[in-house]
Amino acid sequence: MSHPGDPARRVGLDVGGTKALGVALGPDGSIIAEARTPTPRGDGSVDALIDQLAELCTRLGAERAVGVGVPGLVTTAGVMRAAPNLDGVADLDVAGRLAARTGLDVHVDNDATCAALAEWRLGCGRGTGDFVMVTLGTGIGGGLVAGGVLQRGVNGFAGEIGHMVIDPHGPPCPCGRIGCWETLASGTGLRHLAASAVAEGRLPALADARPVTGERVHDLAVGGDRDALSVIEEWARWVAVGLSNLTNILDPQLFVLGGGLATGADVYLPAIRRAFARQLYQAELRTVPAVEFGALGSHAGAIGAALLSTHRTHP
Amino acid sequence: MSHPGDPARRVGLDVGGTKALGVALGPDGSIIAEARTPTPRGDGSVDALIDQLAELCTRLGAERAVGVGVPGLVTTAGVMRAAPNLDGVADLDVAGRLAARTGLDVHVDNDATCAALAEWRLGCGRGTGDFVMVTLGTGIGGGLVAGGVLQRGVNGFAGEIGHMVIDPHGPPCPCGRIGCWETLASGTGLRHLAASAVAEGRLPALADARPVTGERVHDLAVGGDRDALSVIEEWARWVAVGLSNLTNILDPQLFVLGGGLATGADVYLPAIRRAFARQLYQAELRTVPAVEFGALGSHAGAIGAALLSTHRTHP
Repeated sequence: MSHPGDPARRVGLDVGGTKALGVALGPDGSIIAEARTPTPRGDGSVDALIDQLAELCTRLGAERAVGVGVPGLVTTAGVMRAAPNLDGVADLDVAGRLAARTGLDVHVDNDATCAALAEWRLGCGRGTGDFVMVTLGTGIGGGLVAGGVLQRGVNGFAGEIGHMVIDPHGPPCPCGRIGCWETLASGTGLRHLAASAVAEGRLPALADARPVTGERVHDLAVGGDRDALSVIEEWARWVAVGLSNLTNILDPQLFVLGGGLATGADVYLPAIRRAFARQLYQAELRTVPAVEFGALGSHAGAIGAALLSTHRTHP
Repeated sequence: MSHPGDPARRVGLDVGGTKALGVALGPDGSIIAEARTPTPRGDGSVDALIDQLAELCTRLGAERAVGVGVPGLVTTAGVMRAAPNLDGVADLDVAGRLAARTGLDVHVDNDATCAALAEWRLGCGRGTGDFVMVTLGTGIGGGLVAGGVLQRGVNGFAGEIGHMVIDPHGPPCPCGRIGCWETLASGTGLRHLAASAVAEGRLPALADARPVTGERVHDLAVGGDRDALSVIEEWARWVAVGLSNLTNILDPQLFVLGGGLATGADVYLPAIRRAFARQLYQAELRTVPAVEFGALGSHAGAIGAALLSTHRTHP
């Protein structure tokens, strides 16, 4: 489908480990079209990825520009330096290759930074100049708005909050270090805490579960299982350590949570808020940051990517 | 001394636990006058503090405005919510009281934020939009420049980097929590690590030292004592954990170190740089942030305070 008469149409793509989601936004920021495609895997997947992103651009009627949100470390020039969840990606010039393939002006940024931009402009971060987007999934990603500026950092790598070390005696992280926040407070962290609880006999309802998953713990907690809730409280304390650290560093007004764990917000959010209120430094002297799950859900990354082309990088 | 013909003169005061240092800057930012006064202690010290700051303003020829850097949590309106190193300070409206006393336009900010502003405008942060000031002293303070903006946060409390928890099994912090960065990586942290080394027989040269101090460890290391150097390396690893976390979060170009430990930079800096290079996440994919001690030394806080009146808070 092509839309020759619609120059205000902004198109954004969010590339994940299993699928790429694309949206087209109308002038008011609402989603007027949406498309998705599986993320290619294995040999030749880099070429196939560029092809599929180009096809999404066509399907969504991109005429002048497209924004792309990608996982991992991406430079301010739109080069993916590393993306653990995508096959074959190392120093992939997404911006250059997609521009050459489509003739479009291509803007690329980290997916969590895109999500932060979307929630800032169109979601629950509207009106604030200081907030942190925290995506809780397999790992933890982040996007920062500080002092009224969407933060990229000098390399474009700002917001890698999941690799903040919070326990040097903690679990090993795939990054090669020990006790990164995401080893404890991500969905993976929740699964590991649950598996430990099962192994220690503290979660008898899942004694025969193969595998133990965060979803199973969540569902038990919804059903009133106190052991499951206790595991979630333990996990929420680790989430709160990181939120508290970020509060000390950035003094934000708001944390917007997103990522795969958003589907369990009913149970996770109250536990996180309780733990955060206990952990925060000098809570009585400050406006305690609000903690909410994002208003744009799993579309935040693609929406934010669509906004990249009209966002002023520097004020 | 009065300077009626010098409207460009900018005056800044830096209030520390033992003294207040004041400077007057010429149009090019150079120090053209300097004065200091002991910080009042005990009963009535708040009134005495305001009197002494007013006197410094007079001595330094402040005509229209003065900037004041203060320790602890200070709101964007210039109210000190808490300052552990100053007697009797709680919800002290420094800005309002000093303005009423002097008739000057008074700007107040956290001392480390002032130091960051000074190093940004006149010191080794010139030309960068992303750097972190880290003051290593009794505790650890911080000031952030991110995305070209001096960061205050929503309450004015941004930069409390010393209270980032990096080891939940670590030492207790005066703030009431466990394992804050400053319990391990400040001057106090170095002293505690040295005391442990002495107690465990790993630092025989200080076996009879009462008390064990960071300075003693530093001096031994300068003299080639390998045990002392080993303690400093251990301390530097904790410094590096925090620098690495801040790099993941903010992706700065530069860390500027300051505070009391600057006097031992000859030994501390190489150890910190070594540990940071080892600890950093994906160092091979990024511009590794430079780590330097500040160009303005112990005057950075007062110089930055003087710059507050002409610094645009928001771009």
